[in-house]
Amino acid sequence: MVYPEKVKIVEVGPRDGLQNEQSPVSLAHKLTLIDELAYSGIKVIEAGSFVSPKWVPQMADSAALFQQLKRQPGVTYSALTPNLQGFEAAMTAGVNEVAVFGAASESFSKRNINCTIDESLTRFEPLLAEAKARDVAVRGYLSCVLGCPYEGHISPDKVAQVAAKLLDMGCYEISLGDTIGVGTPTKTAAMLEAVLKVVPVEKLAVHFHDTYGQALANILVALQMGVSIIDSAVSGLGGCPYAKGASGNVATEDVVYMLNGMGIETGIDIDKLALSGRNIMSVLDRQSQSKVANALAARL
Amino acid sequence: MVYPEKVKIVEVGPRDGLQNEQSPVSLAHKLTLIDELAYSGIKVIEAGSFVSPKWVPQMADSAALFQQLKRQPGVTYSALTPNLQGFEAAMTAGVNEVAVFGAASESFSKRNINCTIDESLTRFEPLLAEAKARDVAVRGYLSCVLGCPYEGHISPDKVAQVAAKLLDMGCYEISLGDTIGVGTPTKTAAMLEAVLKVVPVEKLAVHFHDTYGQALANILVALQMGVSIIDSAVSGLGGCPYAKGASGNVATEDVVYMLNGMGIETGIDIDKLALSGRNIMSVLDRQSQSKVANALAARL
Repeated sequence: MVYPEKVKIVEVGPRDGLQNEQSPVSLAHKLTLIDELAYSGIKVIEAGSFVSPKWVPQMADSAALFQQLKRQPGVTYSALTPNLQGFEAAMTAGVNEVAVFGAASESFSKRNINCTIDESLTRFEPLLAEAKARDVAVRGYLSCVLGCPYEGHISPDKVAQVAAKLLDMGCYEISLGDTIGVGTPTKTAAMLEAVLKVVPVEKLAVHFHDTYGQALANILVALQMGVSIIDSAVSGLGGCPYAKGASGNVATEDVVYMLNGMGIETGIDIDKLALSGRNIMSVLDRQSQSKVANALAARL
Repeated sequence: MVYPEKVKIVEVGPRDGLQNEQSPVSLAHKLTLIDELAYSGIKVIEAGSFVSPKWVPQMADSAALFQQLKRQPGVTYSALTPNLQGFEAAMTAGVNEVAVFGAASESFSKRNINCTIDESLTRFEPLLAEAKARDVAVRGYLSCVLGCPYEGHISPDKVAQVAAKLLDMGCYEISLGDTIGVGTPTKTAAMLEAVLKVVPVEKLAVHFHDTYGQALANILVALQMGVSIIDSAVSGLGGCPYAKGASGNVATEDVVYMLNGMGIETGIDIDKLALSGRNIMSVLDRQSQSKVANALAARL
């Protein structure tokens, strides 16, 4: 079995992880989290989003956050931008890289943003044109790639079709998201096989939620198929809005532990990473969703 | 990638799971748990152990438990037996199958039972002779196959050597245990590769603790190598005595969810299984360690 020598971790905790937190997390705590994550060796941190504060109140301070960030050399601080207005605000705030998003499920797209997938992607065209003009890298997120809360099964061909479209539109990297965490290894393999026919492996990231505890097994399959970019959130931040009380994103600590054990380089110091997780969980007053974090804490 | 068509789950929750619980679990609650597990479709349940109550007080009622079990057809109820005396007591209580155990780590053997691995195995010889005479199947557990709390790394060759010895002594099945849950996929593969040279794959089981969240990824590797017997404990029962507060055995619910998703037959109804887990966790007054159980409960 051949595995990649290096993996790039895209830390999504400060955005995808925190966005559904009910109680506001202070700007100071967010800045500390991001700073500690960068200090642990993470090179890409999704730090906020420029969406309407009406929809995502937790991200209302993203402009202030990017303005106050202590930028560490070699670290990319990215943000989610749903439209040109958000993109302009992100640029003003000094964001390095932005991300747009589409769904692989028509039902999910219709129920969440009241349009077809194609329509949703078309809306990103002005943003992508402006990003190209300013030479700003745009990442494309694709949700529901292994299942949808409304229509269940999603065909691998549909995922491949939307992934190809995001690539054609100018996204430099496509992150395939198992939004509801229902994927298992053979389904992950079938989905990736379809996508790899249209997207080069070096442009492909995987983004697993650990709702059903399957994330690491699915990530292993992705690694076996050559994928070397993994999204994760420290402490497994981020719940599943479709199953309250369930786990969130796969925990960065658990991913890094696996990669370390496999001799795959990440550049991340797991003890510093776990410390950043302990600090944010202490702010949130909750136990970590990371088994590695809990096991390391039990030894302290 | 080829996976087994069927997997045999060996449920170890009532023994390996409960044995380290500090507060006594009543016999009635144990009997309910075992009955519900069998009702969910599990065919092999390790229900107790015949060890000194001085060492494992939680298992002091194993004889009564086996005498009072409502045996369901086609289900094997097994017990751990450390010596001939335990074996005789198990036979009197009507145990179907017994298990003996050795370590793959000399330090672990010396610190825990004050003898070498070879000496520890020799002590099982009278038991195995008696079991053979009575036609009772004996399972062999091997602990610390992917790491030891005292000496760290354990060589795959050492694991293979002790596994071969257990097989030679008459064990019909060898269960390879990552007692401290430190294994990762490539280490699991290297260990299994060594063991498969001396033990036929159909006699090999894997037994992962999920201390660092790696169990499902490691199980996936074992499945890819043809292993089709998996030990697990409902709700992820069983802590790690070397890291208090850390996770226990891999949760049966999480394993069955993965196998179901992969189209691998287990004969287990996951909803009934999850119910048995919710009931025992309610007795223990703790949250389940199974992400599947927690996600299913969040939807109730």
